[in-house]
Amino acid sequence: MSKGRLEAFSDGVIAILITIMVLELKVPSGSDWAALRPILPTFLTYVLSFVVIGIYWTNHHHMLHVTERINGKILWANLHLLFWLSLVTFVTGWLGENISAPLPAAVYGIVLLLAALAWKILQNAILALEGPESKLAAAIGDDVKGNVSLMLYIAALPLAFVRAWIAEAIYAAVALMWLVPDRRIERHEKHSSVRSR
Amino acid sequence: MSKGRLEAFSDGVIAILITIMVLELKVPSGSDWAALRPILPTFLTYVLSFVVIGIYWTNHHHMLHVTERINGKILWANLHLLFWLSLVTFVTGWLGENISAPLPAAVYGIVLLLAALAWKILQNAILALEGPESKLAAAIGDDVKGNVSLMLYIAALPLAFVRAWIAEAIYAAVALMWLVPDRRIERHEKHSSVRSR
Amino acid sequence: MSKGRLEAFSDGVIAILITIMVLELKVPSGSDWAALRPILPTFLTYVLSFVVIGIYWTNHHHMLHVTERINGKILWANLHLLFWLSLVTFVTGWLGENISAPLPAAVYGIVLLLAALAWKILQNAILALEGPESKLAAAIGDDVKGNVSLMLYIAALPLAFVRAWIAEAIYAAVALMWLVPDRRIERHEKHSSVRSR
Amino acid sequence: MSKGRLEAFSDGVIAILITIMVLELKVPSGSDWAALRPILPTFLTYVLSFVVIGIYWTNHHHMLHVTERINGKILWANLHLLFWLSLVTFVTGWLGENISAPLPAAVYGIVLLLAALAWKILQNAILALEGPESKLAAAIGDDVKGNVSLMLYIAALPLAFVRAWIAEAIYAAVALMWLVPDRRIERHEKHSSVRSR
Repeated sequence: MSKGRLEAFSDGVIAILITIMVLELKVPSGSDWAALRPILPTFLTYVLSFVVIGIYWTNHHHMLHVTERINGKILWANLHLLFWLSLVTFVTGWLGENISAPLPAAVYGIVLLLAALAWKILQNAILALEGPESKLAAAIGDDVKGNVSLMLYIAALPLAFVRAWIAEAIYAAVALMWLVPDRRIERHEKHSSVRSR
Repeated sequence: MSKGRLEAFSDGVIAILITIMVLELKVPSGSDWAALRPILPTFLTYVLSFVVIGIYWTNHHHMLHVTERINGKILWANLHLLFWLSLVTFVTGWLGENISAPLPAAVYGIVLLLAALAWKILQNAILALEGPESKLAAAIGDDVKGNVSLMLYIAALPLAFVRAWIAEAIYAAVALMWLVPDRRIERHEKHSSVRSR
Repeated sequence: MSKGRLEAFSDGVIAILITIMVLELKVPSGSDWAALRPILPTFLTYVLSFVVIGIYWTNHHHMLHVTERINGKILWANLHLLFWLSLVTFVTGWLGENISAPLPAAVYGIVLLLAALAWKILQNAILALEGPESKLAAAIGDDVKGNVSLMLYIAALPLAFVRAWIAEAIYAAVALMWLVPDRRIERHEKHSSVRSR
Repeated sequence: MSKGRLEAFSDGVIAILITIMVLELKVPSGSDWAALRPILPTFLTYVLSFVVIGIYWTNHHHMLHVTERINGKILWANLHLLFWLSLVTFVTGWLGENISAPLPAAVYGIVLLLAALAWKILQNAILALEGPESKLAAAIGDDVKGNVSLMLYIAALPLAFVRAWIAEAIYAAVALMWLVPDRRIERHEKHSSVRSR
């Protein structure tokens, strides 16, 4: 089974998700600075969610790049990931309008946590097919970043009820951790192409 | 005529349909549990519709994978299917806001029924071109799952007017029946590649 | 310059246009037949516009299929076509809410007319590059269908101010005329592949 | 790393951006000319933004066409560009409703300026990988158009607070400057293919 349509469909869904979030930035009712101010928290939440979904897209790009075969299980693990990512749109809108409320901050984190778990499931489904000797297995290694992300998201849940901004700072920190270029797969690629010369 | 653009366009439309449904999940007006509660039925309907459209996408993926040629008739049978799938978005929003009302439950089922019929028409248009000896014909066989789905959707229509939840349970059951991995085409693929060795 | 991205981008835009029109079908406020009734004109307009855009997509598919090269001029002629198609979304919503008013019926026709002219411009830009001996030139011939469509759209404009439904009937008739399978390019393809054997 | 998915994802996002702007054209509440009038400024802003995003798409098409390799840095420079382009949707809606107010005109220009800077960053990231002897470097040359655009956008900022229409005229002028066919890359392509014969 070819991976072409899986990539194309995922590209489509992720492109739409990252784009329709901007519809939550409602046109302000006035035309001065005062009218722009209430949009600021929604804008900041939009930036965070844009980066989070951008990270998923680049990681999806890297992972599928070194994947050679797919099967029906992987199709559904991928749809499961897209489902949780689709809810990022919804919780971004809710958090943007209630930036200092604990529940929206916690629910935003739950959606990020479930998306991260869905990523793990997808990664494991691909690893099961590719095998432990695959390029992907070598590139992922013990997946420290993935596991630290999961733990931070779990830690953020109770902290959201202490202060919403603590949870929000954690979500931003996880995103920054991933933004720092993750060259595991690229580096591995280069090494193997060096070795194969 | 190449099938590449048919796949790409269908991927695009299905990706958009599965994604814009999330726009029906309106941002709640409050920031506590009470504000989330009224969204629950819309959320559950969203989950069901996401799974239904996901099933159509994976089946479309499988069917086109073993299709070798297309023609103008298939292009239109495909657009006809996409038309009914596009209405899933609309009926999902309506059912989500009226989860226990008979008419929205029945109309939701009518749209699923017409989408299932459109699928049959598309399948037959492809079979007519590929011929009875094709891989696709072997993979579909007598299409028990497809026919059972049609009968269940028809049975749900009057039952929606008895109790809406009976019809809704039937729609969920049909979705679950398809979620159970349908390896007909994958299995057939494997067999033929074994045989051809 | 390869035509791959032109096709992919057009597929994307057309897929979105054909899909977001369904957002004009607002969720009814009630849950009975009376609540569905006011949506009927919007639904019918949606069906018409879905078919019109579907026709453009299949024709685009056929035309680009026999196109071998593109240039910057074709990119912009294509964007120009997409611009008018994007307005179909807007006029569909307006006509749906004012099905018997002359101005929305006329404006709907103006947008269809300008889209049809944009199609002619795109077709001519491709023909200029491909040359009069090309497969495309042979397939188009004297383009009777295209010219009749233009004339009917022009005729519909004043008639919309007599009775809106006359104009609407003309738009539906033009769509039906195109729905009748247009096998010019397919037939030509078959002939040439026969000849080339 | 292959550029296929970068192109596909960018096509998807740009296709969505150019299309969802049309959702800002709200269906008028009446059905006569008076109802259409208030939409005129939004329509004109839509035309401008459609052209601006169309220019980015065709330039993206040209630039990636002569790009041979990509890396993780380019993926993120591309996402950064898409982020600012996504805000064009938002500022188009705001400017359309406040066509003669200075702040929306200035903010529209800021978003165009930041998108233009993001383009420069993407271009430089690709040039750094392709090297100064690459086809891309030859095609870009000293990038007069890009630099003039940046300067005009900066000049428009204070002028928006003098008269909004001055800034708007500048934005339209920059768009026209790019619409005049920019055959640098096409021309270079032709030359090299001539030379390589």
